[in-house]
Amino acid sequence: MKKVNLNHAFSTFPDAWSPKVAGDINDTQIKLAKFRGSFHWHHHDNEDELFLVVEGKLRMGFRDHNVDLDAGEFIIVPKGVEHRPEALSDECHVVLLEPNTTLNSGNVENERTVRELERIA
Amino acid sequence: MKKVNLNHAFSTFPDAWSPKVAGDINDTQIKLAKFRGSFHWHHHDNEDELFLVVEGKLRMGFRDHNVDLDAGEFIIVPKGVEHRPEALSDECHVVLLEPNTTLNSGNVENERTVRELERIA
Repeated sequence: MKKVNLNHAFSTFPDAWSPKVAGDINDTQIKLAKFRGSFHWHHHDNEDELFLVVEGKLRMGFRDHNVDLDAGEFIIVPKGVEHRPEALSDECHVVLLEPNTTLNSGNVENERTVRELERIA
Repeated sequence: MKKVNLNHAFSTFPDAWSPKVAGDINDTQIKLAKFRGSFHWHHHDNEDELFLVVEGKLRMGFRDHNVDLDAGEFIIVPKGVEHRPEALSDECHVVLLEPNTTLNSGNVENERTVRELERIA
């Protein structure tokens, strides 16, 4: 049985907005992602999503308010709720927890949509 | 939409080996638990379990080896695998991710079995 060190795992990839799969807990996946700048507005029809900040500062935009998160804080975005993640620091390291059916770009398909996620653990 | 600060959330309860529910991601729950000393050997027939150490040092015992984890490290224990968590520091703060059907004491029912988990967020 192997452990994963988050800091080491984040050091193994440079790209932003491209979640890497670090493990499976039944039908849920733990993914690691780097955020730089802002993503687009989107929602997930069927999947709740948890964002845990490991490094940096994250703004989770909702249509009527923002929630700013520092390292050691998490937020759960329920299915159907429009949101827009944005790094308030140069780079933000985020642990994502979501069903393994979740598409990173949600209901919007664009150049940032990643259909086959790389596994790093 | 509310965020959860892990350090604050851990400060709201004193008891060890009694996971608190901090959120739901579809059928998966995020739970916070304090470990002191060692738990008993057990397994979960149907549920994988993720342990992420937030503070302190955790030893995950398996029948043929141990894995020691520091803060910022996680391990996934697959369903069916016998394990025994043990705090190597006085106290260890752990984020658990597991299906919401998971019983803390697994296949063993004893005085540490908690059937109704308290929600802290």
